[in-house]
Amino acid sequence: MSCCNHGHAGPAAVDPALATLKIDRERLLGRLERLAAIGVTDDGACCRLALTDEDRAGRDLVATWMRELGMEVRVDRIGNMFGLRRGTENLAPVMSGSHIDTVRTGGRFDGNLGVLGALEVVETLNDAGVRTRRPLVVGVFTNEEGARFAPDMLGSLAYVGGLPLQEALDTVGIDGKRLGDELVRIGYAGDAGLGLYRPHAFVELHIEQGPVLDIEGLRIGAVESLQGISWQEVTITGQSNHAGTTPMRLRHDAGYCAAAIGVKLREIARELGGNQVCTMGMVKLHPNLINVIAARATVTVDIRNTDEATLQEAERRFAAFLDELARAEGASIETRRLARFEPVQFADGIAHVIEHHAGRLGLSCRRMTSGAGHDAQMLARICPTAMIFVPSIGGISHNPAEDTRPEDLAAGTDVLLHTLLELAS
Amino acid sequence: MSCCNHGHAGPAAVDPALATLKIDRERLLGRLERLAAIGVTDDGACCRLALTDEDRAGRDLVATWMRELGMEVRVDRIGNMFGLRRGTENLAPVMSGSHIDTVRTGGRFDGNLGVLGALEVVETLNDAGVRTRRPLVVGVFTNEEGARFAPDMLGSLAYVGGLPLQEALDTVGIDGKRLGDELVRIGYAGDAGLGLYRPHAFVELHIEQGPVLDIEGLRIGAVESLQGISWQEVTITGQSNHAGTTPMRLRHDAGYCAAAIGVKLREIARELGGNQVCTMGMVKLHPNLINVIAARATVTVDIRNTDEATLQEAERRFAAFLDELARAEGASIETRRLARFEPVQFADGIAHVIEHHAGRLGLSCRRMTSGAGHDAQMLARICPTAMIFVPSIGGISHNPAEDTRPEDLAAGTDVLLHTLLELAS
Repeated sequence: MSCCNHGHAGPAAVDPALATLKIDRERLLGRLERLAAIGVTDDGACCRLALTDEDRAGRDLVATWMRELGMEVRVDRIGNMFGLRRGTENLAPVMSGSHIDTVRTGGRFDGNLGVLGALEVVETLNDAGVRTRRPLVVGVFTNEEGARFAPDMLGSLAYVGGLPLQEALDTVGIDGKRLGDELVRIGYAGDAGLGLYRPHAFVELHIEQGPVLDIEGLRIGAVESLQGISWQEVTITGQSNHAGTTPMRLRHDAGYCAAAIGVKLREIARELGGNQVCTMGMVKLHPNLINVIAARATVTVDIRNTDEATLQEAERRFAAFLDELARAEGASIETRRLARFEPVQFADGIAHVIEHHAGRLGLSCRRMTSGAGHDAQMLARICPTAMIFVPSIGGISHNPAEDTRPEDLAAGTDVLLHTLLELAS
Repeated sequence: MSCCNHGHAGPAAVDPALATLKIDRERLLGRLERLAAIGVTDDGACCRLALTDEDRAGRDLVATWMRELGMEVRVDRIGNMFGLRRGTENLAPVMSGSHIDTVRTGGRFDGNLGVLGALEVVETLNDAGVRTRRPLVVGVFTNEEGARFAPDMLGSLAYVGGLPLQEALDTVGIDGKRLGDELVRIGYAGDAGLGLYRPHAFVELHIEQGPVLDIEGLRIGAVESLQGISWQEVTITGQSNHAGTTPMRLRHDAGYCAAAIGVKLREIARELGGNQVCTMGMVKLHPNLINVIAARATVTVDIRNTDEATLQEAERRFAAFLDELARAEGASIETRRLARFEPVQFADGIAHVIEHHAGRLGLSCRRMTSGAGHDAQMLARICPTAMIFVPSIGGISHNPAEDTRPEDLAAGTDVLLHTLLELAS
């Protein structure tokens, strides 16, 4: 890194003048608040589903901030948005960032902290007159949540070449809209190619969205790995009939099958134990009336584990159950894979840098695994990657009550600042 | 009964000139088809939810037919519509009829046959120049299905004094609309008082909506009783959270509770056996997203039995299960009663009249119980009542595939004709 007062200093040990550099907490909180106001719901949650008008307004605001900070803004063909801060040398950049789309009942910090924390790092460096050797890029990835379009982490997946552009553009959302059309509609169908920047390293700051740091009273998580994710949609076709006149033995009840799936998922998680989690988050019955046996049911199944072999075992048990259920109920059951990602190992070296700076700044820290999927898991396919977690109060996430203490938001951003400084030097 | 050629004949044995009177099958089928065209869906189902524009169009058509048949049409304050055919004496009328509202995926005959069959009886009598001693009234009752407003059979329930008018008018539908406002909107907030006609007897012709007659190869059911119905809505409040990061032991999953309820209902039905049926026909999760543990779930529970004691036992087991589930999952569970009707015994004398005429007309017949709720069960509170069933092919109902053979539709209407003739004489 270099201070502009001193000219180019080359890769160096921490400059004593920079070792204690801190981000501006109030400025960070101010940006988080302004972004959270876009799509705010009555109960204080954030509803900024990908590629809606709210997402557009959020993107516009972030792009404005990037330009105010002197960054060059580019948007790629899948809508990923990047702000570039040039380095003193024309090297592969260090990238940081996350997403600003939310689930329907999202909190204020999920994703947003990673983007606005990285912008805060840039402004802190600007104010301190620091130029890094490597460029810094702040990335905002399209449709990370997957709450409108499946799969989740779609923008970063396409960015690293894991999903063909056309297929990504042709994705149809829960509202029947085509992703490519929605990109055009909100003005974020950019012209930059996918993989525009090939990062030297990627670091994502994020709230934990789980209870570990909060329960253990720790400030920082140095995230060294990430759970594998298996998403599928299950569609059951039974036979609609009168709820009063159809004897139990003659039923082909899609609603019952949906219920049996929800109960079986809980059983599989209990049997496999450890960190196995299974969730049926969405259920839709048709015709969904009190006195009609459901003809059709569509449910989503979310299965995760840090261990690939156990994850596969969970998938096998679930598939066997569906076969048995279809036979027993005389229903037809079809599954569609929505997403499947193996567990990811992050770069130990970067996790070490995170730990080092947390310790140096007096912040308690532990190595940990991410239970949620993140854009970082996609970037890990093309460059050394790790994540910084800050505590979620009560472990609550995807909920209006999702919260992180202001001092933890600032602490995580401080750790991001020094991690990026070291990686970019 | 009397033939106008012969003047008043008084209560008589079957007039030989009338004993072989038959309805006009093609005319009956024509009216059924014309009514079915209102609200027809792409898959051939009928969607004429109560008090929608489709329901208005259906009512307008039926009212026009009533007037064409020389009937005096009146509408009461809850929208029940009546066509009066005067008798030779000013006595309590014999009433027949049913409903023309449908579920969202209704068939063409459910309810409609009872109304249009009764009109066909009137036209047959008109054509034959027959005047009955007692007046004949054809009733069309509001919101029988309960698919838009709960409880079902609302119009007939209010008619017999089982539901205060204001409460009925204040009912809010699944779309948030108030029943009284919708009545006004479609022009069917009439001025006649509830209980306008106090019938001498009530007979309702209906498709069975179950498999019994079809499986046994019988043409006519003389319905002598009706299942008790228990409807409730269950609302579960858990805690919304991230599906990846929240360990199973820390979950308060409203979606899981909904699933457990669906499975438990099946178990209760199996344990109690006999004709016990239990259905979870509606499920709504919030926020209903793949990667979010549901914060809230609302499900409907439909429990029926012909035996009141067993029905109560089913309700008790279900309530005990909800207590246990709420405790185990750390969720709050609330129930709201939507409808509760005890099993109904119909008038044995009328069932006997039905059996008699079916036999006389060469139609195979059995006494039976209705598994579905019908307006007849409400009318049974104020007058001797019974029902005539015709077979549902495959027992399928509340489904676009709901069907009854034309010869059975005609046979049921012939039995209705002669039953009404005898009761009105």
